[in-house]
Amino acid sequence: MRPSGRTADQLRDVTLEMGFTKHAEGSCLIKFGDTHVLCTATLEDKAPPFLRDTGKGWVTAEYGMLPRSTHSRMGREAARGKQSGRTQEIQRLIGRSLRAVVDMEALGERQIRLDCDVLQADGGTRTASITGAYAAMVQCFQKMIAEGKLDRLPIKSPLAAVSCGIYKGQPVLDLDYDEDSVAETDANFVLTGDKRIVEIQGTAEEHPFTEEEFLRLMRLARIGVDQLVKLQNEALGL
Amino acid sequence: MRPSGRTADQLRDVTLEMGFTKHAEGSCLIKFGDTHVLCTATLEDKAPPFLRDTGKGWVTAEYGMLPRSTHSRMGREAARGKQSGRTQEIQRLIGRSLRAVVDMEALGERQIRLDCDVLQADGGTRTASITGAYAAMVQCFQKMIAEGKLDRLPIKSPLAAVSCGIYKGQPVLDLDYDEDSVAETDANFVLTGDKRIVEIQGTAEEHPFTEEEFLRLMRLARIGVDQLVKLQNEALGL
Amino acid sequence: MRPSGRTADQLRDVTLEMGFTKHAEGSCLIKFGDTHVLCTATLEDKAPPFLRDTGKGWVTAEYGMLPRSTHSRMGREAARGKQSGRTQEIQRLIGRSLRAVVDMEALGERQIRLDCDVLQADGGTRTASITGAYAAMVQCFQKMIAEGKLDRLPIKSPLAAVSCGIYKGQPVLDLDYDEDSVAETDANFVLTGDKRIVEIQGTAEEHPFTEEEFLRLMRLARIGVDQLVKLQNEALGL
Amino acid sequence: MRPSGRTADQLRDVTLEMGFTKHAEGSCLIKFGDTHVLCTATLEDKAPPFLRDTGKGWVTAEYGMLPRSTHSRMGREAARGKQSGRTQEIQRLIGRSLRAVVDMEALGERQIRLDCDVLQADGGTRTASITGAYAAMVQCFQKMIAEGKLDRLPIKSPLAAVSCGIYKGQPVLDLDYDEDSVAETDANFVLTGDKRIVEIQGTAEEHPFTEEEFLRLMRLARIGVDQLVKLQNEALGL
Amino acid sequence: MRPSGRTADQLRDVTLEMGFTKHAEGSCLIKFGDTHVLCTATLEDKAPPFLRDTGKGWVTAEYGMLPRSTHSRMGREAARGKQSGRTQEIQRLIGRSLRAVVDMEALGERQIRLDCDVLQADGGTRTASITGAYAAMVQCFQKMIAEGKLDRLPIKSPLAAVSCGIYKGQPVLDLDYDEDSVAETDANFVLTGDKRIVEIQGTAEEHPFTEEEFLRLMRLARIGVDQLVKLQNEALGL
Amino acid sequence: MRPSGRTADQLRDVTLEMGFTKHAEGSCLIKFGDTHVLCTATLEDKAPPFLRDTGKGWVTAEYGMLPRSTHSRMGREAARGKQSGRTQEIQRLIGRSLRAVVDMEALGERQIRLDCDVLQADGGTRTASITGAYAAMVQCFQKMIAEGKLDRLPIKSPLAAVSCGIYKGQPVLDLDYDEDSVAETDANFVLTGDKRIVEIQGTAEEHPFTEEEFLRLMRLARIGVDQLVKLQNEALGL
Repeated sequence: MRPSGRTADQLRDVTLEMGFTKHAEGSCLIKFGDTHVLCTATLEDKAPPFLRDTGKGWVTAEYGMLPRSTHSRMGREAARGKQSGRTQEIQRLIGRSLRAVVDMEALGERQIRLDCDVLQADGGTRTASITGAYAAMVQCFQKMIAEGKLDRLPIKSPLAAVSCGIYKGQPVLDLDYDEDSVAETDANFVLTGDKRIVEIQGTAEEHPFTEEEFLRLMRLARIGVDQLVKLQNEALGL
Repeated sequence: MRPSGRTADQLRDVTLEMGFTKHAEGSCLIKFGDTHVLCTATLEDKAPPFLRDTGKGWVTAEYGMLPRSTHSRMGREAARGKQSGRTQEIQRLIGRSLRAVVDMEALGERQIRLDCDVLQADGGTRTASITGAYAAMVQCFQKMIAEGKLDRLPIKSPLAAVSCGIYKGQPVLDLDYDEDSVAETDANFVLTGDKRIVEIQGTAEEHPFTEEEFLRLMRLARIGVDQLVKLQNEALGL
Repeated sequence: MRPSGRTADQLRDVTLEMGFTKHAEGSCLIKFGDTHVLCTATLEDKAPPFLRDTGKGWVTAEYGMLPRSTHSRMGREAARGKQSGRTQEIQRLIGRSLRAVVDMEALGERQIRLDCDVLQADGGTRTASITGAYAAMVQCFQKMIAEGKLDRLPIKSPLAAVSCGIYKGQPVLDLDYDEDSVAETDANFVLTGDKRIVEIQGTAEEHPFTEEEFLRLMRLARIGVDQLVKLQNEALGL
Repeated sequence: MRPSGRTADQLRDVTLEMGFTKHAEGSCLIKFGDTHVLCTATLEDKAPPFLRDTGKGWVTAEYGMLPRSTHSRMGREAARGKQSGRTQEIQRLIGRSLRAVVDMEALGERQIRLDCDVLQADGGTRTASITGAYAAMVQCFQKMIAEGKLDRLPIKSPLAAVSCGIYKGQPVLDLDYDEDSVAETDANFVLTGDKRIVEIQGTAEEHPFTEEEFLRLMRLARIGVDQLVKLQNEALGL
Repeated sequence: MRPSGRTADQLRDVTLEMGFTKHAEGSCLIKFGDTHVLCTATLEDKAPPFLRDTGKGWVTAEYGMLPRSTHSRMGREAARGKQSGRTQEIQRLIGRSLRAVVDMEALGERQIRLDCDVLQADGGTRTASITGAYAAMVQCFQKMIAEGKLDRLPIKSPLAAVSCGIYKGQPVLDLDYDEDSVAETDANFVLTGDKRIVEIQGTAEEHPFTEEEFLRLMRLARIGVDQLVKLQNEALGL
Repeated sequence: MRPSGRTADQLRDVTLEMGFTKHAEGSCLIKFGDTHVLCTATLEDKAPPFLRDTGKGWVTAEYGMLPRSTHSRMGREAARGKQSGRTQEIQRLIGRSLRAVVDMEALGERQIRLDCDVLQADGGTRTASITGAYAAMVQCFQKMIAEGKLDRLPIKSPLAAVSCGIYKGQPVLDLDYDEDSVAETDANFVLTGDKRIVEIQGTAEEHPFTEEEFLRLMRLARIGVDQLVKLQNEALGL
């Protein structure tokens, strides 16, 4: 039995509030239950230097947690003078995941910069960030189409992410904090809407797992991502 | 005529949403029009080292802006590896202002840490931060009373802050970004509910101002702060 | 009674020794009693990038304290790897104050960089720095006129600064360290020679103050600044 | 056809030279073809603070590349003043992987610190680091047994790591640089000698992959790890 | 012929103004011609941790240059966030040199911290710093004797430093900036009053030098140091 | 009697293994007994900015120690976020020494960057670094000649370095760690093959030394460097 009473293959309540802030070209407040992440997309009219004159664009991401988004307060990274290894690992994952589904030639020599800032954390902030950042990015593309900067969405496939894990011996979908903190195994899946895999990260917490267990987690992730992609499309009017 | 159509002594629409996040001992999403600041209060059961065995507590603050809270994206301070001079100046101001109205002996050897994070900026973020941080701090005190940690609010006086400035020759209350960016003079007032002054910061932007002008700004600030204190009390159920 | 025996409206002995160092285009060792600040002005023949092709110049400032300028030794900021929030706040104030009285078009696309380094501290280092930096900057302008780079002083008004405070219930001019460390209220005034205000910073230390008290401090500051401007002019041969 | 002429399921020549440096409690120069990593294990007689009085130990790792270990010189991280996100991600992976197979209670309140420094890079430095660090750690344990500090190896299972990828449409084992730089998909597997999984990281480079492809990579990894574990045991005399 | 008209074995005018600042336990403004260095000594009543319970004390030094002490302005190290390699090398040299002549057991478990800040530079700042820091340190010891903290000066020998070099083919004593910037060879000598050597640093600038030349520089240094020791003693009343 | 049984004027076993790594334009693993340093030379086809359009090249160096190259593990400089003063001092010395023997005009507008990384330390790492870096640099020049980028070696003289010291009252050549840690005096000599001096650094550890002692050290250094130059030539096939 899960602490939240959810079934093994049940997501938390997920909502996407598009346009949460007014300055960004795209923005989305995504909630996976009590995990709330504000994702904004910024359009820059220049690609990074290593892409000059290639006709291709780029997508990059940054991630942060507000100091009191967590149960006990974390030190502010800006005050400590550097981003933790965990922060850098997550923002590299977000950027890499989004780049896998963007048609960089259709985007042209521009850069989309995604900021994912966790307002409240209750497990699964990195997968919520990827899912929300995708929506913010598409909203930015929609704005670019409206302004005549693009003809179509430069997207090769929809994309969403979810974590799964083995909680008290049972594979479950979309771990919340109570589950995550005691799970034996934790895996993050970044999947496309057309049944492909962009990124898999599976980690044993003390207890190495079997291939069999891993495959069951992968099946749960597919169920979750299909629902998330549907919610993204509804929020984006697609 | 002000760009927003407000009269010279009219605040923007101000709202305080208490309890915006669930982990913090106190939290408030304060909005001054399109300026939105999330303020959280964290209770720490130890005072800083320089107060050990004095029986007194401490209040401190940190401030940050989300990278895309502004018209064009700002670099993330955590990524650049340091807080700007402006950030440090503002967080010193917030902490100093709140300390002026807290009865540190009644608080006892504890520390309240306020985090003010700007989700969306449209002028006046530092005064909104002080006003919201005061509310988050009082909510934290209310929780401490409910838990039997305090007998009464360790507050000497209510506190709020507002900016005033001279816009196209006319003194006006509560500058928004459109006004702030062209104002000849900008002054921030941190005032108590019992008609006293905690902090005044007046700065000429190119055009030094007269004593007469300064006094008119101070009068407008008093009008604004009286209303802000009323809104705080309503939000806090006082 | 003040510890130094001064009357309420009496400055400390103030001296300005122009040309204290030989390499700088302008330099001044200013002493406010036992507070000694070495101010140097450096002329750079380029304006900062954001002013390219505007025909306007810029003035900026940096501030530092020698480690043993104070009663007990402070850590060296260069060794700790960053400037404190206080240092940044002060150097921003110095730069902003000087820019308010310089005619940037008359200066042309150049930058004047002021360095204010405290050799010995006894209260009031920021106001001494502004007063001395103004003198060093004007000496730099005089040198530029002598070299045919300027036709006249690109100055809109003389400028000086002084701190006032409420010491044992009495408003007094030009706080020294003994007064400053126990003053209930501390206010810094940056004023022009033509009776205008460039910057006001008033801070309650524990005890919020009244409007009446604030106005008395402002009146003392005017008395002090008028004398300081006179001393500057004498030192500069104006 | 692979550039090196290897078959799809063939490792590069792998050697482990134990005791490469004399000061460390364990050391191993591991070579995966032209990828050479020096791994050292340092025994510290205290566990980190969060484990005080738990009776448990800890294992942690750091990773670095010599500036000219690569085709073109990389800036030295010590000179740039920080470790890159990639470096931090890799050293977190190494530490996490090793911790999964160590019996922390048998180790007792001590810490083993692994340093993995790449002398020459030709693809697969992170998996070579894990494989070599495991060997250096076990050598350190052997020394502790010899000194009477341990009764037995505090190891739950052997551990090794290898990368696989899809190169020109074909799944292949142990990518070298020529393959890695053009592979469509790259996955790192950290596996135990008893057929379990410690960590899986699969990443699409531009082309999201199918579940089918992923499973073929996992099968290759198993083949490779079984051989690597055998080589480790030979080098360690187990 | 030297630019200054000095003979080959002639020092610049050297003065030591003891007690230049009032807070430090010892202070000296030393001038070697136009090179002016403010040296202060701070007494700390604890030795550094590695000396706890050894009965021995320690001496350490820090060095800095005011930004406009030089012909063209240098960036402020505190603002750039780190000390240059040159700065660190010099302050290590100063500390090491002073430690060589202090009787650490007679000093007891205390630390003397020397700060050498260059107000104006014209060549030879490191040797002026050592010579002035020695004087400031002895003044600090004299104060400690007066306060009953020491019975005698914990000094094994007087100490001073001077640079020599080969200027236009001729060995000369005490290089000033005009000479230093074109000298073929530059050597710094830290010597004791009793004819011994504490530190020698000789560096060829482009043209490696002979043993013969080096010995001539060493002889000049001895002449200079003997005079400097005499000037120190006069300034200190010894 | 020396701990190693060597005679006073006997070097440790010295070997130079050229081409130790495959990517660098020149590389050398130099061993002075148990001191092992990997030196690599990187050719950059641009000179640093301050040499643009002068027709001259530049040589620079960086130095590092692997964390467990030493008896007890040192913190990794990249992780601590800065290079120590000692590291910076050594790399400045290496660069300066090599520049003294390179004909910068013959090199042309290019830069050679030397990396000296200590794999195992047993005293004398800086002098081993200089001696090995010289060999790596010459190998790089040989490669440039083979590729037609240079006509001849742009070298003015061979160069090697060795440390000498006074160990238990006796001057000895090439201190190892056991000697170095108790030596009364330590001096590093960087000498050319044609009997000239590039750099001398002599430091008293507690006991200032005499001119006589210093001259004996210099004579030993000459003996050592002559042998080192011979070994370099053999390794380089010169």
